Amino acid sequence: MRPSLSLLLAAGLLLTASSGQAQVRRKAKAPAATPAVAPAVAAAPVSDSVALRKIFDEALLRGESYDNLRYLTNNIGGRLAGSPQAQMAVEWGKATMEKAGFDRVYLQEVMVPHWVRGGREKGEIVGNKDKGIKVPVCALGGSVSTGGKLKAGVVEVHSFDELQKLPDAAVKGKFVFFNRPFNDALIEPGAAYGGAVDQRAMGAAEAAKRGAVGALVRSMSSARDDNPHTGTMRPATIPGAAISTNGADKLSQLLKANPELQFELEMECVTLPDEKSYNVVGEIKGSKFPQEIITVGGHLDSWDLAQGAHDDGTGCVQSIEALRLLRAAGFKPERTLRAVLFMNEENGNRGGTEYARLAAQNQETHVAAIESDGGGFTPRGFGLESDAATLAKVAKWSLLFKPYNADDITAGHGGTDIGPLKEAVHPKALIGYKCDSQRYFDIHHTAADTFDKVNRRELELGGASMASLIYLLSKYGL
Amino acid sequence: MRPSLSLLLAAGLLLTASSGQAQVRRKAKAPAATPAVAPAVAAAPVSDSVALRKIFDEALLRGESYDNLRYLTNNIGGRLAGSPQAQMAVEWGKATMEKAGFDRVYLQEVMVPHWVRGGREKGEIVGNKDKGIKVPVCALGGSVSTGGKLKAGVVEVHSFDELQKLPDAAVKGKFVFFNRPFNDALIEPGAAYGGAVDQRAMGAAEAAKRGAVGALVRSMSSARDDNPHTGTMRPATIPGAAISTNGADKLSQLLKANPELQFELEMECVTLPDEKSYNVVGEIKGSKFPQEIITVGGHLDSWDLAQGAHDDGTGCVQSIEALRLLRAAGFKPERTLRAVLFMNEENGNRGGTEYARLAAQNQETHVAAIESDGGGFTPRGFGLESDAATLAKVAKWSLLFKPYNADDITAGHGGTDIGPLKEAVHPKALIGYKCDSQRYFDIHHTAADTFDKVNRRELELGGASMASLIYLLSKYGL
Repeated sequence: MRPSLSLLLAAGLLLTASSGQAQVRRKAKAPAATPAVAPAVAAAPVSDSVALRKIFDEALLRGESYDNLRYLTNNIGGRLAGSPQAQMAVEWGKATMEKAGFDRVYLQEVMVPHWVRGGREKGEIVGNKDKGIKVPVCALGGSVSTGGKLKAGVVEVHSFDELQKLPDAAVKGKFVFFNRPFNDALIEPGAAYGGAVDQRAMGAAEAAKRGAVGALVRSMSSARDDNPHTGTMRPATIPGAAISTNGADKLSQLLKANPELQFELEMECVTLPDEKSYNVVGEIKGSKFPQEIITVGGHLDSWDLAQGAHDDGTGCVQSIEALRLLRAAGFKPERTLRAVLFMNEENGNRGGTEYARLAAQNQETHVAAIESDGGGFTPRGFGLESDAATLAKVAKWSLLFKPYNADDITAGHGGTDIGPLKEAVHPKALIGYKCDSQRYFDIHHTAADTFDKVNRRELELGGASMASLIYLLSKYGL
Repeated sequence: MRPSLSLLLAAGLLLTASSGQAQVRRKAKAPAATPAVAPAVAAAPVSDSVALRKIFDEALLRGESYDNLRYLTNNIGGRLAGSPQAQMAVEWGKATMEKAGFDRVYLQEVMVPHWVRGGREKGEIVGNKDKGIKVPVCALGGSVSTGGKLKAGVVEVHSFDELQKLPDAAVKGKFVFFNRPFNDALIEPGAAYGGAVDQRAMGAAEAAKRGAVGALVRSMSSARDDNPHTGTMRPATIPGAAISTNGADKLSQLLKANPELQFELEMECVTLPDEKSYNVVGEIKGSKFPQEIITVGGHLDSWDLAQGAHDDGTGCVQSIEALRLLRAAGFKPERTLRAVLFMNEENGNRGGTEYARLAAQNQETHVAAIESDGGGFTPRGFGLESDAATLAKVAKWSLLFKPYNADDITAGHGGTDIGPLKEAVHPKALIGYKCDSQRYFDIHHTAADTFDKVNRRELELGGASMASLIYLLSKYGL
């Protein structure tokens, strides 16, 4: 792409508009963009339109979430519940919120599972030939160890139905290889994940019932590569491992040629006693209705294989940033706002459960809760779990989000961490932040979920979108 | 993110729907997804809705654009007009179209500029201290060489206005350092690019008029990093170089401390005589109105620093794929479709100009032309250069694109390559493919524009979106 005549003309126009406003990010004294008063938002009160523009200016010109994420991912890294890194992350979260100047920052104690991957993770296809073929594997979270090398035949299935129909002799003493891929035709990768993840969650438990010695699960991804994807599994008496998609294709192909081949798996994972950990909570007190609470959060724990950047470092820094942006843009929220970094979403949801238990115990009033746990990509909008009237009310605000391409406000999934609030304190809405997710599952729960996969503008646009929704929820209630 | 109860429930539902349809991409015999008959598209003819779903299934399950792009970027790489790689790309394009089974594949000869970067590119800030500070620079396309080491003082400006107001003594014999950054507050990075790129395009020419010895231009990017961004500049008698954004910030900071510092630039670039090259054209003849032509294209040339993946390898493979998808999905287009790989968009637009000249000479009737030259990211929709009635007609189709999140059909910019068609043959619409562009300018014209930055699903969704629009244009005309 080179500057066409029309681009240069546009440049001329823009130069006129911004002449004398040459700005360097973080140094600019005043936001440069003019308020977004597109025809589409003319019907909404101008003050809201201007408020959102202020929030986005603050995020794009002086946002702090990207630098916060750099520290969390590069300096602390993977932080599975119960690990020393999870504890470091708790301390980082508390310090970061204190630095952001919230009215109150505190921890909520919670006991969490403590599963450790251990050192050795090896998978090898052993055929009739002398030399085995190594394939990338990793233990699924919560798996038992293999107790040394575990070698057995392999039976491939694509559903639990198919497993049930197999005769005992075909399963007993073998690995069950769950190899149903993502349905790539689905436009939303989350739906493809939802259509495959039962294999990871329940594969080992179901295989154990039939007398298998282990479960091998095709990684939860559309990508064809060598990254095994971990993730939680239901407790089972036999080990469960993920195998990379390329590895799964290879194994399937070799099985067709030689149904008698064997697989050798070695994993040293272990479950230790529960550990004490914490949710991190930061609060800005409401100026008008302090007893009405709006929660925004992500989960602080992450899988151990990588840095937990998109899952869910981005949700954590965006939640802190959402509150900071409102303060920095000069707003005094009418209702009480809480940024919550939940502990243990990945393998237990103990943090989310405890947050809801305390909310009920303290007889708190919760207006709404927002969660960002689908990656830190370009904003699309929000998905609501609510009644129809509430959805209609929030969807009316979509015009305000149109200039930011974040106006897709529809029924949807709130989030795992905020889920328990539903029964506990009946908020009017559980709201999931929606962003572009086409590349999310390529890296999800793998060693590739690292800081370099996050784009600064995409991340900050997301934080600004969340802050904008909180601004409106705080001002108007539900 | 772990499987919540609701996700597992969704999985159960999806399993029922797709049970027995376990599919492996490229091996599946029938598309698995059910036709998208969302309430939103109920008003549109079902056959169009089903047609689009077929196109997307074909792209997502058996798409070829990602593998084509892998070859073009990894095996050929950067391919500036006039280079041996550009010629290899022409041959690749022809072979790829022939393999796709188009009715006719041919080349259009065009003479193109031949600028060569040369070996040495060095930039160094030289202050009062003994040791210089190296900063990443690269020659702008079309620049003259420095003729050995060129050392001079530096004057920083942020606009041509500012340059005009400087006294002669402040400019003469110096480098003019154009350092106006992107306006980060703008939501569309293309608008920020449009507001800064005049510095790159005309900086050296304007600086030369004032007696400067060279132009240093802040790289066209919001990212803060060490990648210099090349790009074309107007002919000038003095050299023009891009400096990375980090380098520009450093230079600006040191200039404030020491306005007398000097900069040493060395570049060996040279302009050689024009070379013979080609547009590559592939055609599917219309079954009903063969004389009415719809063009879809990207540009085959790319800057030399990297692989030209997003700029514009993606546009090339998507254009070929758009026509292939229609064939593969079983459609016989009513109008004649042409996929065009244009040569020399980056530094001359000779290919686009020649394509339009031939169209006029041959008295062709052009209905519409589509260009993909904004990266291969997740689709958003299309931008039209057309009259209001045509825009209204195309915008009505947006409901059909809603299930694919590609329904943003508004007035916009067509594309550089297809631009000359406007005056030459007056198509009803020039149409630019719009995709998510937040990360585009981070890599644009840099060494980082490589294959690994492209996501398979995003790319294939784009090709399917383009094919879908072509399907509708071919069926209904304009």
